[in-house]
Amino acid sequence: MKRLLFTIATVTCATSPALAADLTRISPDAVATAQKLRDQALDDHAAYDFVAGLTTEIGPRLAGSANDQRARDWVTARFKAMGFDKVWSEPATFPKWVRHSEHAAIVSPYPQNLVVLALGNSPKGNVTGDVVAFKDFNELKSADAAKVKGKIVYIGYRMHQQRDGHDYGMGSNGRTNGPEQAAKLGAKGFIFRSAGSDSDRLPHTGVTHFDDKSPQVPAAAMSNPDADLLERMLAGGKAVTINLNLDCGFEGTYTGANVIAEVTGSAKPDEAVVIGGHLDSWDPGTGAIDDGAGVAIAAGAAHLIEALPKHPKRSIRVVAFANEEAGMFGGHAFGAAHKADVAKFTIGAESDFGSGKVWMLNSQVKPEALGAIDQMMQVLSPLGVERGTNGHAHGGDFGAMGDAGMAVLDLTQDGTRYFDWHHTANDTLDKIDPKDLAQNVAVYAAFAYMAANADGDFGSAPGAFAAKP
Amino acid sequence: MKRLLFTIATVTCATSPALAADLTRISPDAVATAQKLRDQALDDHAAYDFVAGLTTEIGPRLAGSANDQRARDWVTARFKAMGFDKVWSEPATFPKWVRHSEHAAIVSPYPQNLVVLALGNSPKGNVTGDVVAFKDFNELKSADAAKVKGKIVYIGYRMHQQRDGHDYGMGSNGRTNGPEQAAKLGAKGFIFRSAGSDSDRLPHTGVTHFDDKSPQVPAAAMSNPDADLLERMLAGGKAVTINLNLDCGFEGTYTGANVIAEVTGSAKPDEAVVIGGHLDSWDPGTGAIDDGAGVAIAAGAAHLIEALPKHPKRSIRVVAFANEEAGMFGGHAFGAAHKADVAKFTIGAESDFGSGKVWMLNSQVKPEALGAIDQMMQVLSPLGVERGTNGHAHGGDFGAMGDAGMAVLDLTQDGTRYFDWHHTANDTLDKIDPKDLAQNVAVYAAFAYMAANADGDFGSAPGAFAAKP
Repeated sequence: MKRLLFTIATVTCATSPALAADLTRISPDAVATAQKLRDQALDDHAAYDFVAGLTTEIGPRLAGSANDQRARDWVTARFKAMGFDKVWSEPATFPKWVRHSEHAAIVSPYPQNLVVLALGNSPKGNVTGDVVAFKDFNELKSADAAKVKGKIVYIGYRMHQQRDGHDYGMGSNGRTNGPEQAAKLGAKGFIFRSAGSDSDRLPHTGVTHFDDKSPQVPAAAMSNPDADLLERMLAGGKAVTINLNLDCGFEGTYTGANVIAEVTGSAKPDEAVVIGGHLDSWDPGTGAIDDGAGVAIAAGAAHLIEALPKHPKRSIRVVAFANEEAGMFGGHAFGAAHKADVAKFTIGAESDFGSGKVWMLNSQVKPEALGAIDQMMQVLSPLGVERGTNGHAHGGDFGAMGDAGMAVLDLTQDGTRYFDWHHTANDTLDKIDPKDLAQNVAVYAAFAYMAANADGDFGSAPGAFAAKP
Repeated sequence: MKRLLFTIATVTCATSPALAADLTRISPDAVATAQKLRDQALDDHAAYDFVAGLTTEIGPRLAGSANDQRARDWVTARFKAMGFDKVWSEPATFPKWVRHSEHAAIVSPYPQNLVVLALGNSPKGNVTGDVVAFKDFNELKSADAAKVKGKIVYIGYRMHQQRDGHDYGMGSNGRTNGPEQAAKLGAKGFIFRSAGSDSDRLPHTGVTHFDDKSPQVPAAAMSNPDADLLERMLAGGKAVTINLNLDCGFEGTYTGANVIAEVTGSAKPDEAVVIGGHLDSWDPGTGAIDDGAGVAIAAGAAHLIEALPKHPKRSIRVVAFANEEAGMFGGHAFGAAHKADVAKFTIGAESDFGSGKVWMLNSQVKPEALGAIDQMMQVLSPLGVERGTNGHAHGGDFGAMGDAGMAVLDLTQDGTRYFDWHHTANDTLDKIDPKDLAQNVAVYAAFAYMAANADGDFGSAPGAFAAKP
């Protein structure tokens, strides 16, 4: 990518009801350094090398699997090799779910195999029954139990490609809540049209959820072409009988860890800007876009800052989170460990939406820091980043900290292709465009440096952002 | 698709060295009827309904499998339901190859599972060895046995999307001839980068070949992302060890059949224009584009002609060929049964390149029939069909008849996406654009009707096209 050349951006003062003494500002020197980091990042390969190494040398990283430990060892060694000042781990404990095998087939009226993946947290089970179909979770939610009892529930909601991936709301709702609802209504099993926007015969796995007191049924995702096939049979008007045979389930608990690397601050090392992604992945692919890319982006950005002649005032910490996929266990562990010290966490941002370019910045900061966000925007807008809103930003694995009062940025990526590949065997390195990845690194390096060098804070304080829309 | 409206094409006379009495011509009435058939076909759903039914009610149709018989029963019943005048079968016997399971993994330096499919005709085998890589078959062919002995051979040739799919020449060469060559050089196994232009983690199976006297090794295709992964490891410089465990092989012989439907000619019923596709498919998908579409296109075209108030002079026969995939066994059986009567087969064309639009017409006809081909072009060119060459046309399953002297048309389809999906689990109905399929039906209906009604022949005679380039 061509190096971007800009003149030093003019710093404009935001108007604010607060006292001038509370205003958060970024010095012209820090803005200039951020611009250099941004331009340097566009030609830097550290993030791509990181995710290439992780996907090649480790591959899939199902939380609790043998690769969980291997991946943490790999990242720890890589963080040290990258020259970070400190590298450590913080434990995260969670139930260990294991996938052994899954088979599904249409038994009648026209026997055909179905390509399925068990959903994370699904129990083991081998069930055969007639299919009862619903267009989406809402229709299932309002269904009569008499219609569902003894059947295998199917939800057919179809996602489409979108930059913001908003269909995933309804798509993942069916996956997360559909099996429990089906079980409550007396179903014997659950299958659904994958929460994915592709047309490949590769199902999208993902987590589902059962309350401890709920009945449980085996639950699986089918690929879009398989869902099409099932729907054509259903349209024929004959009863469609399916066998669903899943060998999977929980096997005790597992203690993994968030792996953390630090660029130690030059003036206030105990305060930290936190960036990161999650190290675990689903098992069919190699966890490239979800979320090797996110860890790589954060590590690549911090690596550029680590190499500066002078570190920013505050520390920058890169967090490679444990087990996000089954319920943000790493994020919750991080929150539990640190939310009492939330004021020391200047601001946080997780990258967990693939490797498409960042196109929008949403924030969760105090009003007095909006001028500093405007300063960041002047550095980021040449990368194609637009300003979104201030209020409640999506914290991802930093959500627990955000809920506790940490300031958060949501650096929204282009997710047009994300749901074609995520949680499938297709989540492989070739899906990452190195130039798009570098744009992400540029955004994270510039923002993190400016935040770490800001005069004033972004509002992190216990309960600071409690009132959310 | 909007109905195409054309004025009756002006018929131009081709100049030819032959006597006027030998010239083959199509009457203005026949041209007019062909134009009506063409326009009608663009709004006709019979072909799409055919392939939707076949893929939904039968699905994969591996030659010799239980679905081989089921598919023939289905097509026989469907041909009868479509109202063809005659429906019959002609036997085709071939070795029965069976796929039970396949597993492959990189053992070291970085353990990872590989997604593979055994190649058709591969023997069973469980081998572990270091990988020796070649860029394509030609490089393997000239390799020193000392370099290959005891290793697992890998060929990394990468195909790209092309309208004419010409990369498949080199891609399929590696698949067909690579394993035998590797075995001759002392290798213990063979894997290759699928002969496919996609980036999905779905391998492309396909047939390989071993001479009876050759040593044999287990042979499998890996997906493009898996091949990328292997190549990244190889680029690291360490020895890469692979385990390849295939359970597959021959289990006796099987007698299937070509299923044939006839629109009986009104004046010369013993003479026939033959069109068709192959009914068998590889097993990972449902055989939609390869080649349910081809059979559907031919059946849809003949169905329109069947419904005419008056049938053309000659018969039209639709052939749903047996076992094309493992070596054109159905085509060879058809040739063996009929080539003594080659003069009665007016002209033939098989559709076996997916469901993209026909964009070129190549011919293998006598010079005196080129004027009639020009007349066909006037009807077909509004569909986007360009004139190719005359000489040796690609006969596919009609190749044995073509070699024996039958006139042949090669109605070349747009294959840009074909090698993304063929021989993979992704060969499913959603890959067929109904409008593109209808254009194919329009081409086949118009050409077949004109050929069946032509005054004069296209040169079919024993040995007529023996001198080929």
